[in-house]
Amino acid sequence: MKQNRVDRIFAALKDMGLTQMLIVDPMSIYYLTDVFVAPFERFYGLLLRGDGKHAFFLNKLFTVPEEVGVEKVWYSDTDPAMEMVAKYVDKEAPLGVDKELKARFLLPLMEMGAAKGFVNASLAVDETRGVKDNEEQEKMRLSSHINDMAMAEFKKLIHEGITEKEAADQMMQIYLNLGADGFSFEPLVAFGANAADPHHAPDDTMVKPGDAVLFDVGCIKDGYCSDMTRTFYFKEVSEIHRHIYDTVRSANETAISKIKPGVLLCELDKTARDLIDAEGYGPNFNHRLGHFIGLSEHEYGDVSSTNQNRAVPGMIFSIEPGIYLTGDTGVRVEDLVLVTEDGCEVLNHYSKELEIIG
Amino acid sequence: MKQNRVDRIFAALKDMGLTQMLIVDPMSIYYLTDVFVAPFERFYGLLLRGDGKHAFFLNKLFTVPEEVGVEKVWYSDTDPAMEMVAKYVDKEAPLGVDKELKARFLLPLMEMGAAKGFVNASLAVDETRGVKDNEEQEKMRLSSHINDMAMAEFKKLIHEGITEKEAADQMMQIYLNLGADGFSFEPLVAFGANAADPHHAPDDTMVKPGDAVLFDVGCIKDGYCSDMTRTFYFKEVSEIHRHIYDTVRSANETAISKIKPGVLLCELDKTARDLIDAEGYGPNFNHRLGHFIGLSEHEYGDVSSTNQNRAVPGMIFSIEPGIYLTGDTGVRVEDLVLVTEDGCEVLNHYSKELEIIG
Repeated sequence: MKQNRVDRIFAALKDMGLTQMLIVDPMSIYYLTDVFVAPFERFYGLLLRGDGKHAFFLNKLFTVPEEVGVEKVWYSDTDPAMEMVAKYVDKEAPLGVDKELKARFLLPLMEMGAAKGFVNASLAVDETRGVKDNEEQEKMRLSSHINDMAMAEFKKLIHEGITEKEAADQMMQIYLNLGADGFSFEPLVAFGANAADPHHAPDDTMVKPGDAVLFDVGCIKDGYCSDMTRTFYFKEVSEIHRHIYDTVRSANETAISKIKPGVLLCELDKTARDLIDAEGYGPNFNHRLGHFIGLSEHEYGDVSSTNQNRAVPGMIFSIEPGIYLTGDTGVRVEDLVLVTEDGCEVLNHYSKELEIIG
Repeated sequence: MKQNRVDRIFAALKDMGLTQMLIVDPMSIYYLTDVFVAPFERFYGLLLRGDGKHAFFLNKLFTVPEEVGVEKVWYSDTDPAMEMVAKYVDKEAPLGVDKELKARFLLPLMEMGAAKGFVNASLAVDETRGVKDNEEQEKMRLSSHINDMAMAEFKKLIHEGITEKEAADQMMQIYLNLGADGFSFEPLVAFGANAADPHHAPDDTMVKPGDAVLFDVGCIKDGYCSDMTRTFYFKEVSEIHRHIYDTVRSANETAISKIKPGVLLCELDKTARDLIDAEGYGPNFNHRLGHFIGLSEHEYGDVSSTNQNRAVPGMIFSIEPGIYLTGDTGVRVEDLVLVTEDGCEVLNHYSKELEIIG
């Protein structure tokens, strides 16, 4: 167990009036134990108790190292797992539960009266995870560095006749060759009007001259995720598309220039949104400006109009304004940024100049 | 909406004393609507009500077809989504909830008193999904047919010097060439002693003469998953490993020979387990015999010592006995089977003869 991280979580739990918490998000468990298990439908949980009687609930099919530094409680597929968990919970105190805990596990714990109330306490874990320590910052830099190199390869894939899917299908090998461990999420490749859907999945659309070529891509390296979007143009770009691109790029860069400790995250969103709005595209930027990222490609925390939290050194999040015109085109320019003591460090270094490719 | 499937679910809900249910599993929603959304951390739900006032809760970022045949309720990232859901729930009746509903959504609904009690009602959906209709059976046959063809290619990948990871990295392209849409799960490739871990992830281990070469692999085609395991031997096989293989194969085939409507699923598990036990390897078969499969690679329902349910025509599940010897070897032989009116149809046709490759 990484005691320093456990201590930070307990400091936050104490503020919520809690003395115990059941963590089930495999990434949060990995964050604390260096153990990763993909539990699929089976129960997998780490109970943290203020009195130090932590317990790690494991199905006998899971493989974990001998030494984890916490008591292991093994159950088989035929054991009453939730009854076993209930025995380790302090019944006289409320239980903080992971926001990811599913009804199939939570409802039985409630029916058994396993604790004096159940509270979503994920904030304690998520806000701790949201501020990266030095070890994590270094891994995030490396993951984004690979992503920068990959982007330079991805743009070379685009030639007359290629489809989105054919381009996307070559990306894994490029990442692996560059030393990544895999995707942080399935790559988004969108040509032309398909780029107007922020979540468009690569299909059989072929690239045409004048198309926007949007890559929203990321890899995992040593457990940490990168995530970057660049929008290129195939062969040529119209004046109006160039103006849209410049607007989005400027929203990205202006928001980034405001990042420093103490700035409200909603202010960053407003900075980008106002700029896009001033060009008449306000309604076409229909998502938040960014999301936190680390062990997972979407972590708790966002950069949105409603997030009143302030930036703190160690936070890493995306800045990804976009403009989407249904049936026509879409542009997004996304970087990851690390809040530093006096500003921010942009983790991506791939150019944001408008590039015509192919 | 596929009214026939909705009707089957309501028949099951009625037996549980329920008149409304909130479904959140994207695959269950796809099963009913043909709409698939990957909601990530956002709320995504389909409320079914006995009075027909169904509601489909969608984030404005999700893309769904115009015509779904159910009222759409759109929310943005800044809207109070769970309050909106609560308005559509009948407060005077208990609410069936999906077993996958997360604490971050369930606890607020409880605090708002959105319904008169909350019950895990997933059985109603899962048992309906567990019995495949004709359209689904046809898709499952096709997915397994591709998997059979892929297995014939996968074994050819193995040559002196190749690592598990290098073999696994070539599998996606093989599936795509054969017409699959992707993996149903990340392929498991295990050489030699690595095969003793039923969940071993491909690593840099190189194949050696005498190694077991275990492939546990599956693809998705038209939304439906295949899943098959074959264990080959590289260059040679020892007598004891051959005996272990024959034992597992016999457990697989004997269990399959017992499948017909009415047989207890736990009886199938016992058949395979007794056979392995008789050879002295009982403790080395440390998982259930099989799991249900369809739109997801692991669906509700299993073939285990505790499942007292009986086989029903239309059920599709895996039969996958194994023997695992830590530090030495592992064998698993897995097929998917469809229960028919008078027996079963094995969906995999790849040979189960012991094969020496390389």
